[in-house]
Amino acid sequence: MFKATSEYLKSLGITGPTFLVDEVRARANIRLMADKAATSKVTFRPHFKTHQSTRIGSWFRDEGVERITVSSLPMAEHFAEAGWTDITLAFLLNPLELPRLHQLDEYLKGRGGALSVTVDSVDATEAAAGLKYWIKIDTGYGRTGVRWDDQATLKTLAPGAIGLLTHTGHSYQVRGDKGLTDLWEETVARLTAASDATDRTDLLLSAGDTPCCCAVGVFSGVDEVRPGNFVFGDLMQVQIGSMKPDQLAAAVALPVVGLYPDRGQVVVHGGAVHLSKEALTENGRTIYGKLGTLDLPPGGPIGFGSILEDTAIISLSQEHGVIELTENHGLEIGDLVVVWPVHSCLTCDLLKSITVLN
Amino acid sequence: MFKATSEYLKSLGITGPTFLVDEVRARANIRLMADKAATSKVTFRPHFKTHQSTRIGSWFRDEGVERITVSSLPMAEHFAEAGWTDITLAFLLNPLELPRLHQLDEYLKGRGGALSVTVDSVDATEAAAGLKYWIKIDTGYGRTGVRWDDQATLKTLAPGAIGLLTHTGHSYQVRGDKGLTDLWEETVARLTAASDATDRTDLLLSAGDTPCCCAVGVFSGVDEVRPGNFVFGDLMQVQIGSMKPDQLAAAVALPVVGLYPDRGQVVVHGGAVHLSKEALTENGRTIYGKLGTLDLPPGGPIGFGSILEDTAIISLSQEHGVIELTENHGLEIGDLVVVWPVHSCLTCDLLKSITVLN
Repeated sequence: MFKATSEYLKSLGITGPTFLVDEVRARANIRLMADKAATSKVTFRPHFKTHQSTRIGSWFRDEGVERITVSSLPMAEHFAEAGWTDITLAFLLNPLELPRLHQLDEYLKGRGGALSVTVDSVDATEAAAGLKYWIKIDTGYGRTGVRWDDQATLKTLAPGAIGLLTHTGHSYQVRGDKGLTDLWEETVARLTAASDATDRTDLLLSAGDTPCCCAVGVFSGVDEVRPGNFVFGDLMQVQIGSMKPDQLAAAVALPVVGLYPDRGQVVVHGGAVHLSKEALTENGRTIYGKLGTLDLPPGGPIGFGSILEDTAIISLSQEHGVIELTENHGLEIGDLVVVWPVHSCLTCDLLKSITVLN
Repeated sequence: MFKATSEYLKSLGITGPTFLVDEVRARANIRLMADKAATSKVTFRPHFKTHQSTRIGSWFRDEGVERITVSSLPMAEHFAEAGWTDITLAFLLNPLELPRLHQLDEYLKGRGGALSVTVDSVDATEAAAGLKYWIKIDTGYGRTGVRWDDQATLKTLAPGAIGLLTHTGHSYQVRGDKGLTDLWEETVARLTAASDATDRTDLLLSAGDTPCCCAVGVFSGVDEVRPGNFVFGDLMQVQIGSMKPDQLAAAVALPVVGLYPDRGQVVVHGGAVHLSKEALTENGRTIYGKLGTLDLPPGGPIGFGSILEDTAIISLSQEHGVIELTENHGLEIGDLVVVWPVHSCLTCDLLKSITVLN
C-alpha cells in the first residue's frame, strides 16, 4: 500500500518535504462551515492563517466568502494584494506597525472595504485612532483580552469600537461534542455579558475557534464566526473529537532515508523545520504525526486515505523524523510516505508552498 | 532597563519579530572552537545549519575555515553559491535528489572542491556511486546510522567510503562537563572500534556535537569535528552546562502587544512560527524562552546583556508568546524586548534574516 502512494507522489515530481492538500475534502469542509453560518444567519469570516494561500482563498470565494481574518500585518497585506478587501487583523495592535496599518487601510478603503484591528487597553485604543477596532475579550482562555467581567475597562473602551471579539483557545483542552457545545454556550454568555456592561447596544459579537464551530449545530447569539483550522483539520482535531479522520485535508509527503527493521522504525527527511514540534499525547506518549496513504481510484479524483493507527512519529530533530511502525510493507529508501501533522497551521506555515491533489 | 533596550532596537528600525546576533560574541565562539581544533590538529568542519547565513559564514572564513557541514541539499546549494567548495551533506542520502546532488558535485569539483554525502545501507551506498560518501555510524544516539558494533554491515559498506561519521545527539540529555567528556570518549572508542571492524586502515573519523565539543579540552582520536550550535548557543546549551550565559550570541527582538499586571504577564508578537515550539523543562515547568537585555556602553560595541532568570515564556501559540515576569519595569505596548530562545537553530531557520549588533 505504501508503494502505490509513493509511486503516485513521485509521478508529481516530488523529491523532498511537500505539503499536500486534498481539494475535494477541503472544499467540503469549507462548504459545511459556510452552510452552517448561512443557516445561522451570521457572518462567516474564516481565519486564513491556517493556509495563507491565495489559491485556497479562492475556494472560500467560491462558497461566497468575502470577509476574512488574519493574524499578522504581512498576512493582511498578502491577501489585500490578492483582492480581499474586508480584513480583520485578529492580533493585538502593535503600535510600531501603525504607518503600514494605515497605508493598508487606505488601500482597502479605496476598494470599498476596510481593515479592522484588535485592542485590549486604553493605550492601544488611542493608538488605533482612525482605524476600525474590535475589543478583544478574554472569555476564559487567559491569553489576551479584557476580562469579560471587567466592566470598568469595557465601559472605557467601548465608545469607538465596532464590536467584541474573542478566541476560545481553551477549546483545545476539551474532548468531545458535549464539552465543546457547553464551552460555546459559556463563550456566548460571557460575550453578551461583556456587551451588556457597556453603554452600547450595537456592538457586534465575534467568536469561533475550530473545535467549537465544528461541534455546535447552529451559531446562535453571535454576529460572526472566525474558525480557521477546519479547512484542513489535523490529528489534534481528531483527538479533540471535532473532526473525523475522513475530513482531514492536509498532509505532508516525506522521503524515506533510513530503514531500521530491528527496532521497527524508519527515518524520513521531515523534521522540526517541516512539521513543527507541535505534539500530542496519546496513550501516555508524545507523538508528532502519523502515517497515511493516498486513495487512488482508477478514474480519480486522487485524495487521502485513512490514518494508519499503528504508526507514529516518535521524535523530531531539525531535519529528521523517526517513525515507529509495526509493519513497513516493503518500504525502501527513496520512497515517499504521507504523514498527517499534529497541527496543520504550523506545518503549512513552515512548508510555504502547497501541492493540490484532485 | 527594558526601556533603553527597546529604544535602541527601535532606532534600528525594528517593528516585528527579528533575529539578533551579537557579532563580538559569535566571533569569539568561532575563534575558541577553531583554536581548539587547530591545537588538536583536527579538521574543523562546522555545521552551518545553525545560522544558514553567508554573512556569518564569512566570520568562519576569517578564522581560516574552508570546509563546512550542512543538513540539506538546498542548504548545500546556498553555500556553494556563496563560494564554499568543500561541503559535507551530513544527512542520509535521498535517492530522489541524485540528479541535483551530481550537478552540485560537478559544480564544486570545477572549483577544486567536492560534495560528500552520508549513507548507512547497501542500497544508499549503491545509489551514491560517483559521489564521495561517509558511512553514518550510530554510536548510541539511536536515530540513524550503522550500529558501531554491526561488523558485518561495516565490512560491506567500507570499501568505497572516505570515513565514518557520527552525531552524538544524546549529548543533549547529559548535564555537566564530566558526563560530556565521558560521552566524547565513548564516542571516539566506538568510532575506532567500527573502523577496526573493516578492512580499511585509512578511514577518516568525524564526530562532534556542540555539547561535547564545548566540554572537551582536546579533540583526540578523531580526524574532524562538526559542531554547529556553538556559534550562537541558547538556553539549552546553558542548561546542559556546555556554554556560559555570556557566550550566548543570538536572541530575538519581539514587540510587546499586551500587558497583564494582574497575572504578572506580558504578551509579545512572537509565537511558534518565530521561536519554534522547542521547550526545556526547568524546575518542573515547560518554558520556551527567557527575557534578556542589551548591553549599551556609550562607546559601543552594542551587545547582549544577561539572562533575566525571573522571566519565562510559559506558552506559545502560532503568533503569541506569553511571558511571565516578576517585575515589568514600566514596559509599555509597542516596546521591544529581547528573548533568548531555547533552540537557536530552529529560531534562526524560522526568522530567516539576521540583524547584527556590533
